[in-house]
Amino acid sequence: MSSDGNKKEFLVAFQPSGRKGYVPEGKTLLDAARDMGVEIESICGGQQTCGKCKIIADVGDFQKYGILSSPDHLSPPGGDERHYWEKRKRDPGNYRLSCAACVHGDLVINVPEESQARKQIVRKSAIVREIELDPAIHQYFVKVKSAELGDDRGDWELLQAALQETHGLDNLQIDYMVLRDLQKVMRQGKWEVTVTVWDGRQIVRAQPGYDEGIYGVAIDIGTTTVAGHLVDLRTGQILATEAMMNPQTTYGEDLMSRISYGMMNADGVDKMHAAIIEALSKLIKRATRAAKLQPEDVTELVLVGNTVMTALLLGVDPVELGGAPFALTTHSALDIKARDLGIAVHPAANVHILPAEAGHVGADNMGVVVAESPHVQEDIVLVVDIGTNAEILVGNKEHLLSASSPTGPAFEGGEISHGMRASPGAIEQVRIDRATGRPRFKVIGDDRWSDEMPAAEIQAAGICGSGMIDVIAEMFAAGVIDHGGKFIDPNPSPNFRATERVGEFILATREQTSTGQDITVNQQDIRAIQFAKSALYTGAKLLMERRGVKKVDRVLLAGGFGAHIDKKRAMMMGLFPDCDLDNVYAVGNSAGDGAVLCLLSRERRQRAQEIARWIDYVETAVEPEFQARFVDALGLPHNIDEFPHLQGLVPDRRQREAQEETRRRERRQNRRARRKKINETVRG
Amino acid sequence: MSSDGNKKEFLVAFQPSGRKGYVPEGKTLLDAARDMGVEIESICGGQQTCGKCKIIADVGDFQKYGILSSPDHLSPPGGDERHYWEKRKRDPGNYRLSCAACVHGDLVINVPEESQARKQIVRKSAIVREIELDPAIHQYFVKVKSAELGDDRGDWELLQAALQETHGLDNLQIDYMVLRDLQKVMRQGKWEVTVTVWDGRQIVRAQPGYDEGIYGVAIDIGTTTVAGHLVDLRTGQILATEAMMNPQTTYGEDLMSRISYGMMNADGVDKMHAAIIEALSKLIKRATRAAKLQPEDVTELVLVGNTVMTALLLGVDPVELGGAPFALTTHSALDIKARDLGIAVHPAANVHILPAEAGHVGADNMGVVVAESPHVQEDIVLVVDIGTNAEILVGNKEHLLSASSPTGPAFEGGEISHGMRASPGAIEQVRIDRATGRPRFKVIGDDRWSDEMPAAEIQAAGICGSGMIDVIAEMFAAGVIDHGGKFIDPNPSPNFRATERVGEFILATREQTSTGQDITVNQQDIRAIQFAKSALYTGAKLLMERRGVKKVDRVLLAGGFGAHIDKKRAMMMGLFPDCDLDNVYAVGNSAGDGAVLCLLSRERRQRAQEIARWIDYVETAVEPEFQARFVDALGLPHNIDEFPHLQGLVPDRRQREAQEETRRRERRQNRRARRKKINETVRG
Repeated sequence: MSSDGNKKEFLVAFQPSGRKGYVPEGKTLLDAARDMGVEIESICGGQQTCGKCKIIADVGDFQKYGILSSPDHLSPPGGDERHYWEKRKRDPGNYRLSCAACVHGDLVINVPEESQARKQIVRKSAIVREIELDPAIHQYFVKVKSAELGDDRGDWELLQAALQETHGLDNLQIDYMVLRDLQKVMRQGKWEVTVTVWDGRQIVRAQPGYDEGIYGVAIDIGTTTVAGHLVDLRTGQILATEAMMNPQTTYGEDLMSRISYGMMNADGVDKMHAAIIEALSKLIKRATRAAKLQPEDVTELVLVGNTVMTALLLGVDPVELGGAPFALTTHSALDIKARDLGIAVHPAANVHILPAEAGHVGADNMGVVVAESPHVQEDIVLVVDIGTNAEILVGNKEHLLSASSPTGPAFEGGEISHGMRASPGAIEQVRIDRATGRPRFKVIGDDRWSDEMPAAEIQAAGICGSGMIDVIAEMFAAGVIDHGGKFIDPNPSPNFRATERVGEFILATREQTSTGQDITVNQQDIRAIQFAKSALYTGAKLLMERRGVKKVDRVLLAGGFGAHIDKKRAMMMGLFPDCDLDNVYAVGNSAGDGAVLCLLSRERRQRAQEIARWIDYVETAVEPEFQARFVDALGLPHNIDEFPHLQGLVPDRRQREAQEETRRRERRQNRRARRKKINETVRG
Repeated sequence: MSSDGNKKEFLVAFQPSGRKGYVPEGKTLLDAARDMGVEIESICGGQQTCGKCKIIADVGDFQKYGILSSPDHLSPPGGDERHYWEKRKRDPGNYRLSCAACVHGDLVINVPEESQARKQIVRKSAIVREIELDPAIHQYFVKVKSAELGDDRGDWELLQAALQETHGLDNLQIDYMVLRDLQKVMRQGKWEVTVTVWDGRQIVRAQPGYDEGIYGVAIDIGTTTVAGHLVDLRTGQILATEAMMNPQTTYGEDLMSRISYGMMNADGVDKMHAAIIEALSKLIKRATRAAKLQPEDVTELVLVGNTVMTALLLGVDPVELGGAPFALTTHSALDIKARDLGIAVHPAANVHILPAEAGHVGADNMGVVVAESPHVQEDIVLVVDIGTNAEILVGNKEHLLSASSPTGPAFEGGEISHGMRASPGAIEQVRIDRATGRPRFKVIGDDRWSDEMPAAEIQAAGICGSGMIDVIAEMFAAGVIDHGGKFIDPNPSPNFRATERVGEFILATREQTSTGQDITVNQQDIRAIQFAKSALYTGAKLLMERRGVKKVDRVLLAGGFGAHIDKKRAMMMGLFPDCDLDNVYAVGNSAGDGAVLCLLSRERRQRAQEIARWIDYVETAVEPEFQARFVDALGLPHNIDEFPHLQGLVPDRRQREAQEETRRRERRQNRRARRKKINETVRG
């Protein structure tokens, strides 16, 4: 306790921040906290309505602060505060509203996590990420002086005055769509209104009375798959996740075929634009329904996608991205009204599209950067984002390089005889017994291995990208295929079947499938995956050379199928350069994660715009050695000097020779044994 | 000529501004002018493309500047400049492009009017107005560095860089609708592009190559009539003027009935909103067609209207304007994208709506203020803007008051038996012979009086507002009606006809009309006009009292029919308080003029926003004396002490008595003469 002559002051400390200071007698705890820079949540701005500023006054002698604290040092709850709890039929317990409780003695105040503004929230990935929750939209509740004769101010001016007075908001604008219905809203709420403010400057929603809840949607528009999260922007919680096929696949499987479709058809771009807009609206509708919300509750969107997807989203003809110099319409982040794009959410909602790095490295890769933050790491990181088009990042906080590699659709099940997307029924894991050459597998949606269940229950429908990686790595390890990807002849596996076109490996028999046909892997399938992985590997190696590093400290595998990928078998396949497997992480859809982060944090958005310009883009296609390197990398890794971490996992050259020797010996012994048996039988 | 040691300098003076200064040798005249604050037009920013910066180098000894000037003191025309003239197949004569001509001697330069940026343009009205042309949109031509491999900038970033370099434009934004087609435009123009920039900050149009022309439309949305001007914003010239009925009249003649329609019908507001938007699009289409332009050439709009019209334009339910406290949605000026309103112009065009003063004094009255500028006058001005709703302004630069008066539709021909809008066929001028009591008239579309032409050619269709004012003033002056507006009995005019309902005055006989029926004025018609004029008069008098003035120095009659009004007869009718007739001006559609001025000048717009808050609004309806005053003012002015300027024009009380005495005497004489004649005949 202290006194400045006129007015008494008391010592108040806030937990967990530990900030303390003298507070004049009678000041509210909310104001005291603000004076000390302790941010406590409040939607109503101190009108004892929202209850977001709940705190607890601790009891006891806090020697570290020199404070003898007691709840009795606060003014007792008044009518409004009691009314707040009664209305909610809840016992306040030790809680007090900090906007109501006034200081009348020394205090230690505990600010619970839910009452902290800009709270830290944790999101897990390769690295545990802690971010400060500061979305682009915030909500404010106000009581507005009602219109009356003699006051010529309009409703909007009265609302502005109230927002200024209660929340200190200046220079606000209002979206036309909100202005249009403002009078109805103000009267419906009896001159009490909750507004949602975008970027601290524009009102994008007005709701009658007190209302709480701000919601955003983050969507990754992939060439094949569109995936989105509905997020509660007050808590950072993901309320719903939805995914669907990109309906543009009707017009072309990969980027080049979409570009061509736009070139060949006068209304091609418009059709593809309309298709994705409709898909986004549908996806948002599903997600909001799942969370018992309405699409118009969504007032903020963050979208990512590769540069062709972004162009089509905007209704821009992507033709320039089909040839050098691969010119973008813009590399900057964009803020566009949802109604201008035609997305069915709140009409005043803002759509934020992350910036692009270059013609082939778009907003989705910026999402990956935001999510995985290679630009702040000491370690040299390799990030591979695998989709129909793959993006690669190599570097650390000093220098980060990016490139794009046309992997094609093989990793997503495209151009594979029995390929399919990673959805229920897809074979996603494969093991081949080294001794017998017989496979077993798991399908998405079932935790059991195929040999642990009746064949009829398996119902395998096809093989997804991670299944392809597994089966090829396992076939190589089991000696079914050689280093070049070719079936070994004679083949040691009973599941190998010779066909007109070289042969095929029977992964699932017709009894195990939902189609009634064998699911097989043939020479062409293996070749397609080899092409895809070589594009990735070559791109990564070129970037490493440019970056001046021989090895990377950490590998992050991102992408739609990143979550299902078996990192060990991906390395056995040669998807990426050698690395300690403990430092290889399958991080799933990082682009989408980055979009969510940008939904939660304005600072991340701003940083993304800067980082996009800072990252060095390398056009690998024009590198003179690319083609030669690409051909060299088609094979499966078998040089243990180059891949020390694959020691014991794949047959290296020496092992292979030993293996072949063993096999020859076995065959000789077998022959001998058989001959012996025949002789014995003949003699017998 | 002077020298600063390193580089020679020459003395250059610019006409007509008279600014002069030293210019380093070799500098272009355009740069020299800019350095001295002489603003020369330029769209291409010095690339010898647009030719807007033409000047003439004068010849001779200009003693007032101390300059011996010669065109030889300029560098000779180079290839580009010669190419400019050749391309246009024009002889340059003495003209030079100031962006090409470099200073190599002392010069007097004449900047012709068309080359002056922010040129002064003159618009005529009650006062001759000179305004500086500075519209919200400006045009710039640039040559852009083309996209190339290794430069990751998008087209928009390349364009920004070029605009910065050539025109010094910073922090530009681009409308999404322009961004969408930017790549096509840039390539079509071979990396040369002309952009239209709104408010110095947002690109609202991009055209391939060099293109010149910026166009705006100013529209006054009246309750009954919608009138608009298409304006060339480079020259200030009005290219086309169009007017049409407000299609909302289908839903109600006046404001209250439109408000009711919105209240009684669930989709009423939406219907009226859609109707006016469609009308605006149609009107703009007509105007652009008349000027051989396309609607999408229009990138700027200024709209004015009363508060109900503005609400319906925005799609806002005007219900709050139907009752106290007459709350507006906003009193501020608004900038809204044309596409958000659905008006068919360039989709990125901006719509500027002037601010309102109060619930009953809207953007149209601000248009009047902008056009007539009572807020800068020393004189006390009375401005009466007559429409279905009338607005009144009284005051000067020290204090300006406004009010609104519900005149009803009588002045626009509504609720009058033979009333019609001021369109061809309407009787707009009336004279009644004081001796014979016979009328003659003029119809809109014909310069002759009705007694100067064959009856069959007249084809009168009805009476418009100014015709009604004329006929009532004349009937009063001719003694057909008395001070109270009642037909005098017995009536001195042969055109008076007794009917079941008191009687009527035959203005045009069936032979003179297009309908084949007499056009008459009855007691109810006179009463309707009296109500309307009394509302105006009472409002004006109340404001004068509030303003503390007994008389006004000047009266401005504005409004749709203001152009046709006979100011003398309007005063005889008692439409406004006494004033020297030389100081009464019929200024026509001032609201529309103000809208045009706001299209031409950003400064006027900004000032309008300030003035709207500075003007004091008086709610006349709640003034306790209003009703009594209104009843008192229903009569026609006949107290010459109160209306000294009506001396000799209307029968005053004393004249009236003398007149009646004369008439009695005449009747006696007539009786005597008749008796004498009968006697003579009988005797004969």
